Parts: sequence; C-alpha cells; structure tokens
Amino acid sequence: MTTPTRRELANAIRFLAIDAVDAAKSGHPGMPMGMADIAEVLWNDHYSHSPANPQWLNRDRFVLSNGHGSMLQYALLHLAGYDLPIEELKNFRQLHSRTAGHPERHETPGVETTTGPLGQGLANAVGFALAEKLLAQRFNRDGFDVVDHRTWVFLGDGCLMEGVSHEAASLAGTLGLGKLVAFWDDNRISIDGNTEGWFTDDTPARFEAYGWRVIRGVDGHDAEAIAAAIADAKGDASKPVLVCCRTTIGFGSPNRAGKESSHGAPLGKDESDATRAALGWTHAAFEVPQPIRDAWHAVEAGKQREAAWDALFAGYQAQHAELAAEFLRRSNGDLPANFEADADAFIARLQADGPTIASRKASQMSIETFAPLLPELIGGSADLAHSNLTTWKGSTSAAGTDANANYVYYGVREFGMSAIANGLALHGGFIPFDATFLVFSDYARNAVRMSALIPAHAIHVYTHDSIGLGEDGPTHQPVEHLASLRYIPNNDVWRPCDAVESAVAWKSAIVRQDGPSCLVFSRQNLPHQTRDAVQVGDIARGGYVLKDSAGTPEIILIATGSEVGLAMDAAAQLGDAVRVVSMPSTDVFDRQDAAYRESVLPKAVRKRVAIEAGVTGFWRAYVGLDGAVIGIDSFGASAPADQLFKHFGITVDKVVEAAKAL
Amino acid sequence: MTTPTRRELANAIRFLAIDAVDAAKSGHPGMPMGMADIAEVLWNDHYSHSPANPQWLNRDRFVLSNGHGSMLQYALLHLAGYDLPIEELKNFRQLHSRTAGHPERHETPGVETTTGPLGQGLANAVGFALAEKLLAQRFNRDGFDVVDHRTWVFLGDGCLMEGVSHEAASLAGTLGLGKLVAFWDDNRISIDGNTEGWFTDDTPARFEAYGWRVIRGVDGHDAEAIAAAIADAKGDASKPVLVCCRTTIGFGSPNRAGKESSHGAPLGKDESDATRAALGWTHAAFEVPQPIRDAWHAVEAGKQREAAWDALFAGYQAQHAELAAEFLRRSNGDLPANFEADADAFIARLQADGPTIASRKASQMSIETFAPLLPELIGGSADLAHSNLTTWKGSTSAAGTDANANYVYYGVREFGMSAIANGLALHGGFIPFDATFLVFSDYARNAVRMSALIPAHAIHVYTHDSIGLGEDGPTHQPVEHLASLRYIPNNDVWRPCDAVESAVAWKSAIVRQDGPSCLVFSRQNLPHQTRDAVQVGDIARGGYVLKDSAGTPEIILIATGSEVGLAMDAAAQLGDAVRVVSMPSTDVFDRQDAAYRESVLPKAVRKRVAIEAGVTGFWRAYVGLDGAVIGIDSFGASAPADQLFKHFGITVDKVVEAAKAL
Repeated sequence: MTTPTRRELANAIRFLAIDAVDAAKSGHPGMPMGMADIAEVLWNDHYSHSPANPQWLNRDRFVLSNGHGSMLQYALLHLAGYDLPIEELKNFRQLHSRTAGHPERHETPGVETTTGPLGQGLANAVGFALAEKLLAQRFNRDGFDVVDHRTWVFLGDGCLMEGVSHEAASLAGTLGLGKLVAFWDDNRISIDGNTEGWFTDDTPARFEAYGWRVIRGVDGHDAEAIAAAIADAKGDASKPVLVCCRTTIGFGSPNRAGKESSHGAPLGKDESDATRAALGWTHAAFEVPQPIRDAWHAVEAGKQREAAWDALFAGYQAQHAELAAEFLRRSNGDLPANFEADADAFIARLQADGPTIASRKASQMSIETFAPLLPELIGGSADLAHSNLTTWKGSTSAAGTDANANYVYYGVREFGMSAIANGLALHGGFIPFDATFLVFSDYARNAVRMSALIPAHAIHVYTHDSIGLGEDGPTHQPVEHLASLRYIPNNDVWRPCDAVESAVAWKSAIVRQDGPSCLVFSRQNLPHQTRDAVQVGDIARGGYVLKDSAGTPEIILIATGSEVGLAMDAAAQLGDAVRVVSMPSTDVFDRQDAAYRESVLPKAVRKRVAIEAGVTGFWRAYVGLDGAVIGIDSFGASAPADQLFKHFGITVDKVVEAAKAL
Repeated sequence: MTTPTRRELANAIRFLAIDAVDAAKSGHPGMPMGMADIAEVLWNDHYSHSPANPQWLNRDRFVLSNGHGSMLQYALLHLAGYDLPIEELKNFRQLHSRTAGHPERHETPGVETTTGPLGQGLANAVGFALAEKLLAQRFNRDGFDVVDHRTWVFLGDGCLMEGVSHEAASLAGTLGLGKLVAFWDDNRISIDGNTEGWFTDDTPARFEAYGWRVIRGVDGHDAEAIAAAIADAKGDASKPVLVCCRTTIGFGSPNRAGKESSHGAPLGKDESDATRAALGWTHAAFEVPQPIRDAWHAVEAGKQREAAWDALFAGYQAQHAELAAEFLRRSNGDLPANFEADADAFIARLQADGPTIASRKASQMSIETFAPLLPELIGGSADLAHSNLTTWKGSTSAAGTDANANYVYYGVREFGMSAIANGLALHGGFIPFDATFLVFSDYARNAVRMSALIPAHAIHVYTHDSIGLGEDGPTHQPVEHLASLRYIPNNDVWRPCDAVESAVAWKSAIVRQDGPSCLVFSRQNLPHQTRDAVQVGDIARGGYVLKDSAGTPEIILIATGSEVGLAMDAAAQLGDAVRVVSMPSTDVFDRQDAAYRESVLPKAVRKRVAIEAGVTGFWRAYVGLDGAVIGIDSFGASAPADQLFKHFGITVDKVVEAAKAL
C-alpha cells in the first residue's frame, strides 16, 4: 500500500465500526459509516488535541451528540493514539470494557461528555463553547491567547428534532459562540425510516433564524468539499456555524446504505463481506494496515501542539503570574485555599444572627458571600432571576465581552440550561449553577440525570419548593419532585430548613466534586433554628438531631425544609420524650456510617413521624410501616400558602395527632 | 354610553384583569392588558363557540399557552356568558374558586386545557388541531362537514423559547394543520426584562422553516389590523398560521407598560387608578357597563351556531346513521359495548396459551387485538416504532388524508409527543397512546404530569424498562423512573410480568377515563405465569397473590415485571411457607379497600422481600424497615442483559439469600 487515500482512512473507521458491532451483536453501524469521511477530515486536518494527554487544557472539544454512533468516536480515539487499544474495540458493549454502547466520559479517555440522550450533546457543546469564550475573555492577554480552542459537534436528525436543540442553538446564536461548529449528518433517515413523514424542517433556514452561519449543501462523502467547509467555518468567529452535510447512512453497504436497516443493527457476515468488497477493504476484522495507522496516528503531532502551548503558557506565567496561577487553579477544579474556612465563618455568623427569611433569600445571601470568593461560580436562571434570587451584586451577563462575566440569562429554556451547565462544568474552569422553580425541574429532568451520570459538578437551584408557593396553583406546585430527584443516583438533593442549613447546602454543593447537587428552597419565610456548634457541623451529614429528647426518644419527628419549624412546634406540644431530626439531605445522610445513622435514628425507636410537603411514600424508608407520614399525595391548589397547608393537613395539629396515634 | 368602541370592549378585559389581580394581591396583569385587543377581535368576530354549552362538539378550541395570563381567559369566559360569574373573578386565586392562578380545565367551564407550564399549550393545541383534522377525514361526508372547527392559541416569548414549541410546531408544519392559528404576543419582555439579551430568534423565519404560514408585523393594538390578519389566517387551510402581533405588555399602564414590572405583580391602587385615567375607564373595580356587557354577550349567538350545527347533524344522522352513532360514541368517550367482554376473552385466551415473550411484544399483541375494536385508539412513537412495537397491521399514518389514520410518526420529540397526545385526548374522539424508551419518559416528564393533572385519558407506553435492555448502557437504562412515575399523583403505572398482565394493563388503561396510565414493558422475554380465573381477575386490582404459601405465609416476596419470574424461582427454592405477590401496579393496588390489601399483604407478616430492577427506597412502603429490597440504586452499565442482572445482584440467589437473612 502506498500513501492511503482519504477514503481509505475513512474506511478504517467504517470497518472498525462494522466489525465491533458485528462482534457485539448489537450497536449502530450506519452513522459511523455515514460520517466517517467528515470525521476523517476534521480529525486529521483540524482537530487540535493531544492523544497522549486527554486533559490538555487548550485542546479542542469534540462532542458526538448522535451518541449511538459511538463506534465512530472509539475508532477515532483508537486510531489517533488515545489509550484505547484494539482489544477495547473488540470488547465493544461488554461489561468492564471502555467502549460502552454510548460514549461515556467516565469510562473512556478522550470522550468529553456522555451522549446518547439525543440533543443534549449539542447543548453540552454550547456549554463548552461558552466556557471557552468566557475563559478567553477572562484570562487571555495581548500575545497570550492561552485559551483558544474550538468545539466541534456531530449531530443527526434526531438531535435536531429534539426540543433541547432549539433551546441550545437559540441561545448559542444569541451569545455569538463563534468557535462552535456543528456538523449535521443530513441523511434523511431516522429509526422509523425516511424522515419525510415526520421531519420536514428547512433546517438551514431554522439555524439562520437563530443567528447561526449556515454552510449548506456539503457533500459529506467528498473530502475536498468537507475541507473547504471546515476552512470556511473557521474563517469567521462571530457566529456559531452549522455545516450541512448530505450523507448516506451506512455508506458502502450494498444492501443497507441509505436505509434505516443500517441504523441500529449489525450488518452481519454477509453484508459485512459485501461492504468490504464494495469499498475495496481487503483486511480481516479489526485489522488496519500500518500505513493507514501511521496516517491516523496523532500522538506526536499532539505533543507538539501541547509543547507549543506549554511554551506560550510559560511566557504567560512569567508576565502574568497571578492570572496564570488562577487559571490553573480553576482549570484543576481546586477551590481557593481559604474557601472552606470563610464558608464556615459565614455559617457560624448566620447561626449567631438567626435571620427568619425565605430559604431562597438565604440562598441568595450564600451566593452573595461565596461568589466573590469563587470567580469560577457561574450562575443563571431560566428567566426567573428575581424569583429564584440567583443574581448578586457582582452578577455580570455572559452575553457581552466582560472579563468578569459570571451570569447566564438562559431565557425560558430549562432543559437547555441544565445541559449547557453540564458542558460548562465538564469544560473546566467553572462551577455552574442554574435555577428554575422546583416543578420545572421536570423540563430539565434528563439533563439533571446526566449531571449525575456523567458526572458533572453542576448545581441546580430550585425555588418555590412546595404548595407553599401558593396562588400559582397546582401546575406550579411540586409534589413528587423532591422524591423523584432524590432517586436519581449520585444526585445530592438538599432542602434546608433555615438560613444556616441553606448556607451549608451551598457549601456542600460547591465542595462536592464528583456529581451534582440540587438545592431546593422555599418561597416563604422559614424560622431560624437554634443549634450548638456540633449541630451546625452535623448539618453537612445530611440529617442530625435538631432537638433531642430527655433520654431515649419515645417519638422521633423527621422533617425537611419548611416543615422543620412545624415539627419543632409539634415537639413543643408533645413534651420532652420527642426528638426532632432535621434531614436536609437524605442522600447525604444515607451515605453516613451506620453508627452515625443509628445515633440519629435508633432502630429500636419505631414511633416515627416524617413531615414533608411532598409525596408520603418516599418517607416510608425512614419511618417504616409503623410510622406516620404527614405530606401530600395529590396535586395542590391555587390559594394563599397558609390556607393550603391547612387544607392539605400539613399542620402542627396533624403532626401532634399522628404522633399521639402511634 | 353609546355603542362601545372596540378599545372599550378590550378595556373590559384589561380592568377585570387589573382588578382581580389587585384583589388577589398576586397574578399577572401584563399579558391580559397586552393581548386584550387581539382577544377582543378574535372572540367577538371569529371564535365559534357556545357559552351555554362548553361541551358543544363542533366548537372552536381556544388555548392560552401563556397561561399565567389566566385573567384574560377568565374575563373572556365571564363576558361571553359562560358559567363564571363575577364573584368567581373576585375570588381569583382563592381556595375553591373556579379561577385558579393558571387556567385549569377541571375547574373552569370553557377552559379547554390546563396551561401554565410554558410551551405545552401550543403542543396541546397541535393535538386539538390534529384531532379535528383526523375526525373530519373520518366522519365528514359530502354536504356534511360535521367536524369543522379551528384551534386558536395565544402564546408568548416564553412558549417560543421552550424546546417543546420546536417539537410541536415542527410536527404541525409537517402535518399541515391548517386550521391551527397561533397568535404570538411579541412584546419583547420576559420576566428577566427585555428579551434582547437572551431571545434574538427571527421567529417568523423560524416558523416558515417549519412550513407554517407567517403573518408578520401585525399591530396587536389595532383592531382593524388584527381583523385583517385573522381573515387572512382563515383564508388558506393548507398550513398552520403564526400571526405575529407587536404588543405592549401592560398596555395602558402609564408607569409599567412595556416593562417587566407589569408582568407578574399587581398594579396596586395608584397605578390602577392611573391606568383607569389613561384609558378613560371610569368604572369601579369589577364593574362593567351594560352596553359593554351586551356587546360581549355571546350566549344567544352561540345557541344559534349550535342549533345550525344540530340541524346539520340531524341531516347527517338521517343519511349516515352508523357514522353519526359512531361519531357520538367516540365523542362521548364511550367504549364499544362489546369491548370489555372481548378484552376479557383475549385475556383468558392468553392465560390458556401461555406465551413466553417480551412484554413489549405482548403489548403489541394487545394493540393488535384491541385496536380493531377501538377506532378511537391513535398510536404513535417517538421514532421507535420497531423497538416499542407500537404499530399493528392496521396502522395508518396520520400524515396523509386517510380516513382510517390512527398512527402518528412523532419523530424524536418525546415532550411534544406526550403534550400533543394530551391534546388529542382532551379534544375527544380519540384515546391516544404514545411511546418511547422508559428512560426517555424524562424528556416528556412534565407532559405526563399534565396528563394526570388536567386530567387527560392518555396512555404512555414505555419499553426497555430496566438494565434488561442491555448493551445500550446507562444512558438508556432506567433506574429511578418507575418510582418517579408512580409518585405523580393520579398516574397509574403498570409493569406487567407476562403477556396476561400486559393485556390487563392495556385494558385497564383503556377503560380508565379519569387520567393517564403508563404501561411499562420489557425488551427481553418474560416467562408465562400460571393463574386460575380468580387470579386473572385480580390482576386488575394492581397486586395479587400469584403463588400462595401453605397456610399463613412466613415470607412474602413482592415483585413486578421481569422480576416476578425471578421471585417465583426463588420461592420454589425457599419452600412452601413463601407467598409471591405480583404487583403490576402499586397505584391501583393502593386504591383497593383495606380488606383486600390486608388479604394480599397481611400486616402481621413482616418478612418481606421486594424485587424490582429499580431504586430500592420506593419499596420500603411495602416491606418496611424490617424487610429487604433487591434492586439497583446506581446507574446501570453497558453489557448483555443477563450479565447485568448478575453484576447488579438481581438474581434468584440474592433473593433467596435476602429472604433467609430476614
């Protein structure tokens, strides 16, 4: 073999995908076969990365929003020289392999984000591109563009049909994220067949309506045309770019090309052989000839890129030592040295001051205190800044070119917001928080799940946390949401009862690196609770004894958030045999050692009442079959909050009654 | 007062809204003030309804997608003569009033759907318009357009930012729903302020890209311009129409017009007085002069419209008796007389035949059996027809003009799909079912909640219900979803263990009129279970004894879906002191009388093991603190299903071990 042709380089992707899917007996060969030529040109001529160091700070980011085509990405990573040997490709979709059915960031080096749930990759990519833009604004100096990289996205018709693509693309256009380039795999096939029956958008016109630059009519199997389009895309950094690539799904398969049958099933031996013949690929399964491997190998080129950047950064360090140190601190995800001590001092001060305020207001006080310490904290709300109380006096919009930009006006785009926040977190350099009403966590729900699964260090702020929001009525009143969010694995949900617990929740969410936290706050005022220093410290354990009984408790009241004050009032009526446990985070409490949990909720004490203005079933895990739960299992109603608590029986009297009936 | 001007008619809306919000001390005056002129022209000159009979079958449908402007709708209903007296407006947002903070269908006559969660009203409206189109195709005959009405939607910038607006509008364009007309309240203000910082779409171009007809640049405060636009919109029924109305939020308020301060807070006495002065409205709070009332009153005109239609329908009945009877049956939501008996016969046959198949396949068999009996059953899937198995041999696409159209290729649009399904259900004449993978119920989550809250008789089919889906990995494997869906009030979740339970679940979902059902099915094969006739009958009670112990049980195993077979195998090992309870629907079981529940799960028997491939916490409500739960509280993994069940410890051995350890 002489110098491989571009088509041959692309065919290496195609056959690794075909062979791996055949070996796994499941998977999606059609997309890698269709997008191989585009990927080949992008990765070999433009993608700025360093396979030997997938964490290189100034690398480009590549996102496979149509994540079912995972074998495309694994083939690219393998061929470029990432730590993904051929054995891993042979183990595609097997237990403990690094080649899961869909790309997973925590499994595979070089995978920037976990994709598969359609459309969210694009939104993550908007987060990547926004992070790059803001870090560049903050850290670059004349002659030192230490932050200067692109975000490339592959996406398919499925991504474009999803609503989240609208939210993310619309905001990307408004924000002018010019270093974001998306490649649309325009193959007119989705799982149900030819898309003409259900997807007839003029997608280029749609994206132009968002303020994107659209490069139309690119032949996605013509390397020259692809190269020209990418050069064009890089030529103007004022707008995000959509490159519309006409492709054939399953390209090269004599009997399945252009058909949905190539989408999500192995070709099988006969069709694989026929495709080999059609494309002139004479090599055995998983075999890639050395000249093709050599042409793909990107390790040395990557090291050179990295070395060039290292040299640039060394000069930057010499001239801008503080900035450079701050850049590295933020990029490494290290908190400022004084953060924890300052946070603890704030918490102690709140305990001493004892304000009776809404926990959403307490949340804003925490932001006001923590944000100046943490320039990496980037806030935002889905058009509810004044209700969520997510702005602070230093809030500066990310829409402009301000070096201190730290707030995203996300608009009414909850799903896009949280998926973009995931991208901001994954890029590095930022700890994002986003916000909406708790009930509208529904709209963002799979992005919250993805925060936990990827995992991403994102903080989701949810205010108006119960029927306590009052007159807006049942469409706006969460009932099942606390329980539902707690059940997402690796998601820490906090529902604080006063300003002190609110500050601890914020601190915990900031300190926690390995996943998201949901911070759930009230609209209405909540009374301050008395605590000694040990109790203040125990808040961070998720649940603790807020008021103890004299001796072994006869009855334990367990409550969260706005119902803690109610439990305390009930306890005052019930006498000194009653213990009150405040449980701001069941997730965190459940992770404590058995001895601590036993010390808070002794197994032997079965007279337990849980109180929370949400579904009761959840609390059976804490009160068992013999306890009682005061909560709400129906939808709420539109009325002033105090009337609603009475109407739905979430009152001191009901708690006392339930406790006495045990 | 002489004949009122159009502006005076519109001002009646404005001041009812201002006064009601002021009285409630909360609410949203800005939108009603901004859209009053549009509403006035639409309702007084075009809206075809009958206030005395809000259920008139051929009425137009009006949807307030920007539902926070509820006082606009209440003012319209009151003025037109619906059963919504002024006292109700004075009680806006109070407990037990018919004027909730956001419009609620189950509270207020004339409200076609419950709105507030932004964007979904538009999607519901697409469902209304689709229902109208399909019913017209099915039932109209030459000279008898018995189904012939329009769907009108009001929507704001918030609706347009939401992703669901993309999904719904895109599909409406593809389907050519020409009797759908949307009015965009283009006031450039959302809660966070002027939208230029976060919403810069060229919305007219965007909707043209969807295949809508767009009427641009209408002055939303000029009755002549509005009238011309509506006439134009009605002139061509080939495409849905977006009427772009430039408006001023809070129109008429000297100090708040055009500002976000008018959006979501009462004007208060001073500004209300100033607005009265500015608009020349000299009347006291809640007072509307008789000439204005007379001009608005639409009861007689509505009765005439209805009478004309009744006459048409009488002729139709005379010439097309069967069609007319069928139209009335479907519109009234009556099942065919033989449905229950036929369904029971099918269930009995399945019990006798005993197929071992995937429950998704069993679901398809149920559809295949029930759909020919129920022409009102309209299916669909979010581009997963061949995975969800939602098509049957009579499936006919709703995209064309076929009289028997009964299947919507929704594309990859889960949220839009379920919100459209709600609209189909609310219109009447259809029982919709939609489908996706269980994990992607997340994408549709708030629409499922709305199915339950409105309530709408919608059926949501979710396949690939656990780690049992295998290689696609954790992004596609539901873990928390069963519990989360069960916690939505008024939502019946079914997870059948075999073909028989699958058929019962389908039957229950069809028979249930007052809310949605989620039918959750496996990808993998499930063994058939033996039952006697009483047991078959008890499936419909949600939980029942599938295999009983000899005498009082020492141990009870409770399982659902794919884990029932596993429980049966464990019971075989554990001996005859063990009872196995199959619990396909906890929601339905929890509604049974106490005696039945006690007969299945005797309080005294505390050695209980619940087995379900989902989060364990949920099952504590059934096994208490002393029982055991075999499930999964982490994300899944990518591997063949059988390996995953072993890896995550959901096996017969683990059940036996847990039971013995109790």
